[in-house]
Amino acid sequence: MLIVMRSDATAEQIARVVATIAELKLTPHPLPGATRTAIGMTGNTAAVSKSLFEVLPGVENAIRVTKPYKLASREMKKDDTVIGNIGPKTFTVIAGPCSVENEEITLRMAEHLMNKGVRYLRAGAFKPRSSPYSFQGLGLEGLRILERVRAKTGIGIVTELMDTEHAAAVEAASDIIQIGTRNMQNFGLLKRVGQCRKPVLLKRGMSATLEEWLMAAEYIMAGGNYEVILCERGVRTFSDHSRNTLDLSVVPVAKNLSHLPVFVDPSHGVGKRAYVPAMTYASMASGADGVLLEAHPDPDHALSDGAQTIDFDTLDAVLAKLTAMANLFGRTLG
Amino acid sequence: MLIVMRSDATAEQIARVVATIAELKLTPHPLPGATRTAIGMTGNTAAVSKSLFEVLPGVENAIRVTKPYKLASREMKKDDTVIGNIGPKTFTVIAGPCSVENEEITLRMAEHLMNKGVRYLRAGAFKPRSSPYSFQGLGLEGLRILERVRAKTGIGIVTELMDTEHAAAVEAASDIIQIGTRNMQNFGLLKRVGQCRKPVLLKRGMSATLEEWLMAAEYIMAGGNYEVILCERGVRTFSDHSRNTLDLSVVPVAKNLSHLPVFVDPSHGVGKRAYVPAMTYASMASGADGVLLEAHPDPDHALSDGAQTIDFDTLDAVLAKLTAMANLFGRTLG
Amino acid sequence: MLIVMRSDATAEQIARVVATIAELKLTPHPLPGATRTAIGMTGNTAAVSKSLFEVLPGVENAIRVTKPYKLASREMKKDDTVIGNIGPKTFTVIAGPCSVENEEITLRMAEHLMNKGVRYLRAGAFKPRSSPYSFQGLGLEGLRILERVRAKTGIGIVTELMDTEHAAAVEAASDIIQIGTRNMQNFGLLKRVGQCRKPVLLKRGMSATLEEWLMAAEYIMAGGNYEVILCERGVRTFSDHSRNTLDLSVVPVAKNLSHLPVFVDPSHGVGKRAYVPAMTYASMASGADGVLLEAHPDPDHALSDGAQTIDFDTLDAVLAKLTAMANLFGRTLG
Amino acid sequence: MLIVMRSDATAEQIARVVATIAELKLTPHPLPGATRTAIGMTGNTAAVSKSLFEVLPGVENAIRVTKPYKLASREMKKDDTVIGNIGPKTFTVIAGPCSVENEEITLRMAEHLMNKGVRYLRAGAFKPRSSPYSFQGLGLEGLRILERVRAKTGIGIVTELMDTEHAAAVEAASDIIQIGTRNMQNFGLLKRVGQCRKPVLLKRGMSATLEEWLMAAEYIMAGGNYEVILCERGVRTFSDHSRNTLDLSVVPVAKNLSHLPVFVDPSHGVGKRAYVPAMTYASMASGADGVLLEAHPDPDHALSDGAQTIDFDTLDAVLAKLTAMANLFGRTLG
Repeated sequence: MLIVMRSDATAEQIARVVATIAELKLTPHPLPGATRTAIGMTGNTAAVSKSLFEVLPGVENAIRVTKPYKLASREMKKDDTVIGNIGPKTFTVIAGPCSVENEEITLRMAEHLMNKGVRYLRAGAFKPRSSPYSFQGLGLEGLRILERVRAKTGIGIVTELMDTEHAAAVEAASDIIQIGTRNMQNFGLLKRVGQCRKPVLLKRGMSATLEEWLMAAEYIMAGGNYEVILCERGVRTFSDHSRNTLDLSVVPVAKNLSHLPVFVDPSHGVGKRAYVPAMTYASMASGADGVLLEAHPDPDHALSDGAQTIDFDTLDAVLAKLTAMANLFGRTLG
Repeated sequence: MLIVMRSDATAEQIARVVATIAELKLTPHPLPGATRTAIGMTGNTAAVSKSLFEVLPGVENAIRVTKPYKLASREMKKDDTVIGNIGPKTFTVIAGPCSVENEEITLRMAEHLMNKGVRYLRAGAFKPRSSPYSFQGLGLEGLRILERVRAKTGIGIVTELMDTEHAAAVEAASDIIQIGTRNMQNFGLLKRVGQCRKPVLLKRGMSATLEEWLMAAEYIMAGGNYEVILCERGVRTFSDHSRNTLDLSVVPVAKNLSHLPVFVDPSHGVGKRAYVPAMTYASMASGADGVLLEAHPDPDHALSDGAQTIDFDTLDAVLAKLTAMANLFGRTLG
Repeated sequence: MLIVMRSDATAEQIARVVATIAELKLTPHPLPGATRTAIGMTGNTAAVSKSLFEVLPGVENAIRVTKPYKLASREMKKDDTVIGNIGPKTFTVIAGPCSVENEEITLRMAEHLMNKGVRYLRAGAFKPRSSPYSFQGLGLEGLRILERVRAKTGIGIVTELMDTEHAAAVEAASDIIQIGTRNMQNFGLLKRVGQCRKPVLLKRGMSATLEEWLMAAEYIMAGGNYEVILCERGVRTFSDHSRNTLDLSVVPVAKNLSHLPVFVDPSHGVGKRAYVPAMTYASMASGADGVLLEAHPDPDHALSDGAQTIDFDTLDAVLAKLTAMANLFGRTLG
Repeated sequence: MLIVMRSDATAEQIARVVATIAELKLTPHPLPGATRTAIGMTGNTAAVSKSLFEVLPGVENAIRVTKPYKLASREMKKDDTVIGNIGPKTFTVIAGPCSVENEEITLRMAEHLMNKGVRYLRAGAFKPRSSPYSFQGLGLEGLRILERVRAKTGIGIVTELMDTEHAAAVEAASDIIQIGTRNMQNFGLLKRVGQCRKPVLLKRGMSATLEEWLMAAEYIMAGGNYEVILCERGVRTFSDHSRNTLDLSVVPVAKNLSHLPVFVDPSHGVGKRAYVPAMTYASMASGADGVLLEAHPDPDHALSDGAQTIDFDTLDAVLAKLTAMANLFGRTLG
């Protein structure tokens, strides 16, 4: 259930609603909006009467949420969630190499991005690899490199968390914590990042339905971290011309059912660098709020995923075209 | 094998190459290009020597084609195929109701489209329906209506052919013959439209790989009809938020491997009208040469597929935004 | 709607029900059963009252059928359909080469099968091939070979029909007409075999749902041919260890929803001969009424699909094990 | 690389090979077989010469393993892996409720199973649920119940581990540790159970290829736990007649490529109890070494997954038929 406060509701009135929810042994989730605050509640609300709240001072009305996801649903929160500069007015590019290789390359990448107005660097310190014998990333040393690059350049860091044991270290080193496709239903990990105080970029599972994906976001939000960014990265199908099948039509549907920002990762979707620019433009046109791009100063010598990684010249051309397009879609790049 | 003529080759020199191919009991396929003619050949060319052709006057060189599709391949023909106004310089909208319902509605639709600069009307006289008890279309009477609407308005007609027995009637009534997704590997039908002298819009099968799709185009082209338009319309996957999973990443790959125009049908792809505009813009951004849109003056009372059909106001808004976007993608609407 | 007659209903009483249905401009489908006759009807029955029939002499009751498929549904016909020796008491093996190659090999195959108690030979005269340049089968000459082999050995012939134009020739040469996976929704072809008087083996489409498959059977039955055998042959998925993903769990579901026999084609399902025996046993265990097996005296030199074709020794071993298993499943091989 | 020892090799000779591998900074994996020991090694073996080992006393030969999975591959170990009574001579049934509900039901279940000769009880104390608001299992209290039921009845316990933090508790309470489908690529968890000294039942991911599944097994084995049981449980496809698409054809392929036992979970595969028996028989016929069955004294009142859970009468009938079948497949139930 969702309690919508009047626009002129006082802090005391809000606090009283929160207290009433807690007395019922339910969990309150205050959700400040542009013009008014709403307070979601989770737990077994089936037997709770709406009138219990509607008589309280400052309450506009109480709404039952019909979706299995509550906090993630558009029913619960009409306004688009804005996370820093990420939201409906901007189109945010996050770019960088698949993995942190060394400080020199990471720094060059970050400087190039900052020069071009890109404010987030993606790079993996911990890498999920299908083989136990493959390079698994630089680990904590990779996080140290990212922290030094951030200190030098001011760029925001997006990096993947794979295990609860590294949660604190990744939270400290990152500005956005990435949860990978293989961990979309690693519920222990989702609960852990629910306690972090950094936004979480949640990749869609390889064969996850939209509802399962929003339920995964709900796990994070139910823990108290409401800053979740959804990221489509291609799903598993019979289709063999691309590495995965990028499901762009999930973008407008996700944005209709949820208030969370939706990003796209065209690099993993198509798996071949020649097709990344076209699918980046298509991502913006589909209504996405941003993209994750694998980029590297020298893709042919990248330590991992070079085949789908674009070089600086291609990245610059993509940014120029996105800037021109953004105007048509009521956004600015940033 | 492909014989590329010099740009100054004479008609006699071309004819001699054609005759030489025929003498080898192979089938010649002259393919005129922007600056030069090339002559494809099909049949068992494994034992044919390239030097046999390279000594003939007017021949630039001979090239072995490595793909299982020959005539459809970019190897065989570097230049994009242009079919009337359809090609790399334009973005072509084909719009209209799922099925021909009556002359009045069809005429209203056509007049609205012509007023907005849309030059092709789509409407089915023969409808593939999963139930034998469902409305199967007006049949020949539907074709008559389309012919009268074309005569009155000058609009081009796109309509589906389902059976070889109606091939002549559909060819006469249409400007582009549509082959539906269920018939993508109805090889008898493909061979029959290979003998037609109207362009063929070939929808991708529900679970066809790109190679199978291009091989289906090859069936048509091997019969002598080189004017094939590929049309992505969503594939079958586990994903349940949309009717099908629109595979937009097939667009840049198909255009790289083939010289044929590539269209997208976002209406069948997503299956819900609210999401059609976003996926239409994404289609253009992915590099498509055009779209098929289901539109109707009163979608809620359309005889079939109303849920995915947009109304005139939405169509007009979509056309306006496509016009603005086209400029960025080096195209004009038409 | 279905009109169930009393077990002692006379021919005149049945005829009167049929006539009453016809007077309503609906199509009657008399369905004789083991102990009583039922009469299905198709057309728009929504406004037809059950009492109209329940007052007629000899009528037990009238039942509304809730599925979109009527004649194919278990609601319409409780008893399993028996087609010659094919039905719930037997497990029927249909074996043979992918394509008719020549009379000598076809005859050897047929003689070997008859010696082993296998009563049906499968072999394609018309072959659906994804490339227009591949061997397309011997065509009418292949049908002549099959007819001569049948005359010499008495074996039943199962062969594919791809085009309406060859329907009469295939009907004459075959004992069971096969409709291939690519034509499961070639509705013109389905209607045509609805007029044939030979049983039809209907392969499931590569990405057909069970309901679509039963609707395709309905197309055939609505034309008056009630002898349809369903055949699972693997569906398209992401899974790459086998040619297709054999969906054996469709067998018990199809047999629950429909009275039609259900076969399995493990050869196309797995695509590698080493795995065909295991999946043949699994087919029987899943409840299937029979299997289609690709077998050839010399699989490594078969003209098509040799990789999934078993040799005589393997076939004999499979038949021996099926014979032992059949006993446990209340069936006999035949 | 794999070093195969002579059948009369001494413990000292084996130790010397192990030491030689360690000197190369590689990891040795001694793999005792029925007649001889082999020693696998993992790490970067590309530059290691086979002759280095072939000159050592007791060494028969050295073999390069071509698959990306090494320890899991049939190349590395010819003999089927036997884990307690689980292996090629038996067909092992693991049965029980989806989740541990209380001690009384769990005990009744265990007693019924032991009476029928079933030696393993499955029941989840930790439940992966797509909603954060659903019952998540009894947790540690559930493990206590399982330990008491084991102590009273002697039955083996199979229960799921979801988080590294509960690894020790689950290892203590279980005889086989289950890794669920959502965690098949939770690499931290795989590494953790690689350090456990209990067998691991590894469910296939919802959209995992066979190679990815074997690589997940490799993660466990590379940690030193060689007792891995693979378990097919249905994959995600477009097919909607069953909860998942049970991919039985993976069974013979997995057993060909790997020496590990392969189980099937027909309950999750089909999702409806009426179809579970047929798919259980099909599992044995496909060559599986055992099955996981959801069973409950009163399925309609089970706390989770009741729709796919069979009751005692059905379970008994299934066991009787499996016993009869097992004989034909060279196995005994147990």
